[in-house]
Amino acid sequence: MKIAILGYGTVGSGVYEIITNGKSLELEKIEVKSVFARSRDKMHLATDDINEIINDEEISVVVECLGGLNPAYDFIKRSIENGKHVVTANKAVAAKYLDEFVELAEKNNVKFIFEASVGGGIPWLVNLERTRRVDDVKRVYGIFNGTSNFILDNMYRNDQEFDSTLKAAQDLGYAEADPSADVDGGDVVNKIILSNALAFDIHVQPDFPTYSMRNITKNDIDYLKQYDLAVKYIGETNVEGGKYETSVMLSIFGKESQEAAVPLNNNIISLDGSFIGELKFYGQGAGKFPTGNAIVQDIVDINEGSTRIDVVIKNNLSYSEELTRRNYLVRSSVELSGELIESIEQYKGNFYVKTKEISLKQLTGLVDEVKEKDSSFVVAKFHK
Amino acid sequence: MKIAILGYGTVGSGVYEIITNGKSLELEKIEVKSVFARSRDKMHLATDDINEIINDEEISVVVECLGGLNPAYDFIKRSIENGKHVVTANKAVAAKYLDEFVELAEKNNVKFIFEASVGGGIPWLVNLERTRRVDDVKRVYGIFNGTSNFILDNMYRNDQEFDSTLKAAQDLGYAEADPSADVDGGDVVNKIILSNALAFDIHVQPDFPTYSMRNITKNDIDYLKQYDLAVKYIGETNVEGGKYETSVMLSIFGKESQEAAVPLNNNIISLDGSFIGELKFYGQGAGKFPTGNAIVQDIVDINEGSTRIDVVIKNNLSYSEELTRRNYLVRSSVELSGELIESIEQYKGNFYVKTKEISLKQLTGLVDEVKEKDSSFVVAKFHK
Repeated sequence: MKIAILGYGTVGSGVYEIITNGKSLELEKIEVKSVFARSRDKMHLATDDINEIINDEEISVVVECLGGLNPAYDFIKRSIENGKHVVTANKAVAAKYLDEFVELAEKNNVKFIFEASVGGGIPWLVNLERTRRVDDVKRVYGIFNGTSNFILDNMYRNDQEFDSTLKAAQDLGYAEADPSADVDGGDVVNKIILSNALAFDIHVQPDFPTYSMRNITKNDIDYLKQYDLAVKYIGETNVEGGKYETSVMLSIFGKESQEAAVPLNNNIISLDGSFIGELKFYGQGAGKFPTGNAIVQDIVDINEGSTRIDVVIKNNLSYSEELTRRNYLVRSSVELSGELIESIEQYKGNFYVKTKEISLKQLTGLVDEVKEKDSSFVVAKFHK
Repeated sequence: MKIAILGYGTVGSGVYEIITNGKSLELEKIEVKSVFARSRDKMHLATDDINEIINDEEISVVVECLGGLNPAYDFIKRSIENGKHVVTANKAVAAKYLDEFVELAEKNNVKFIFEASVGGGIPWLVNLERTRRVDDVKRVYGIFNGTSNFILDNMYRNDQEFDSTLKAAQDLGYAEADPSADVDGGDVVNKIILSNALAFDIHVQPDFPTYSMRNITKNDIDYLKQYDLAVKYIGETNVEGGKYETSVMLSIFGKESQEAAVPLNNNIISLDGSFIGELKFYGQGAGKFPTGNAIVQDIVDINEGSTRIDVVIKNNLSYSEELTRRNYLVRSSVELSGELIESIEQYKGNFYVKTKEISLKQLTGLVDEVKEKDSSFVVAKFHK
């Protein structure tokens, strides 16, 4: 089977090297025919003319590793319309246009698969699909972003501040010059949207509660350490009684939990099934070979005629911000009061307000009250 | 597709209930036609005549949930010979007769699958198979046994002794009246043999170093706690340069590791791939619905014509006990000395001897010296 790779950066070159150097029977059947890249100098298969690829009838699979919305959206769409399967690691374009791509792929009788877009090298989406064949999924949650975990882990283990840690992450190549997607939630938002699609057959818009982790301080972490607690940056969706609730925010775990034990830039993602209970999947959430590996698995699935289930968007759950009740922690200079508050502690010049078990909607009300007075607030959920 | 279930105990009834109550499209295609069980009273589909099942041409899949070697061996063999796929959770019979079953299944053009036999509800073997399509696996290891983890976790978190904890596990139904398979290694031995087959194409005999965890004491755990260490019962295989090395023994992890964080009777199993790095799979390693779920996944794979790779036993690795070098801890009343020893500490009346980084073969020599003088010794590997 002949394929084309769009983009020859970290991920695209990883895909090429895995296919070219791989020794398995499955990999021997796959040939990279063409690479869409700017210059012929870097790569002997490169072309800068996308039409050469999209119009090439020998190419069965287009592997999109460009990232970003454009021209990825256009290239994916045209590839599907030309009867080519599409594999992508591009969570932004997949999360935004999922319903459109899924419909188009069905119409053209091809596959649109995006394993590598969530959890990098972790076989998360395929296992979520498999679980659904037998079981109901009631919840998905996890550490979906390696950069934010690297930062929180370093702050926790090495008593560092956010800013110096972010700088270190940038120097190591774990964080972008503009870290917003990683620390303000955009990356996790896309990944939980894609997980929601496979777990619950819904394609949701990114308008659920999303709280940045940017304001976390060494003091916050020290405050939690007193109680043997650690904080991680979590995307989570719960489903019950025809309703779903999604959020992206800092979440507080016991220091002996699996989540607290995730080091460096690794990810861990969990599902909770009616029969199977809780399953957790841990590994490298990004990087040339882990992400490249996940893409190549998708290509092998297509070539072997795997029975992976197709994404079906039914959108038959309604959105609710009153589905779960949790204790939350709000750290700011504001001494919140009222019937939603369980306890308040002062620590190093700030108030640490623990709420009673309240809804996400009630939390939004409290946060609205805080953010007018102190924009450097932090909000975190006590995981349960 | 019509299937038969052999045995209607915990696992067999779990399989029946999942298939009967399941709502997915995949499950609707599967019908339990017959159950091999002692009495027709318990179960309306029961028959106590195995020939009724084996000679029934409508039955495509036989699900063996009897456990033990006999009559499971005979029933599996006859089912395969009669052209039926076989799915089993029976690690003992699968580990012992794997090569024979694999060969027989290939000859009869049917599948022999055993996902549930290792890691219970954790989709471990299928992910190991998937990994192999693209990547080399260099190592597998993990907590394969829930009972031993329940005991070690309770000793660690609640400062209990082995005997009282074993009693509690027995009262909760987590441990058998005769706990030998769980605490002396037999269960993990079978599971690592089956993992070896899928990871490395080898079918090995259970003659590798296997050390019981039965002698572990609260003092041992307290000794390790001083150094922020925890101990878990681990099966492990390493492969390098055409050689493999397998062992089952207590292993020492940092208290902030994923392994140390595994609570109660859960399992965690890891693989280390050249491209993918380390992947970890966590969940319920036993129980009616987790194990039942894994079996039903195998049945669905057969019915959907999944492209799961077939087990191929090549046995082209040679065995070595000099492949890895590790620090080991030997606790006994014997003050070992010599060039293999790094340090010795006395703690509450015993010697805790830490070796230099030595081979498994060298360890065997040391243990031989100890066990003549103190049969209540404990040996553990420092994981790395």
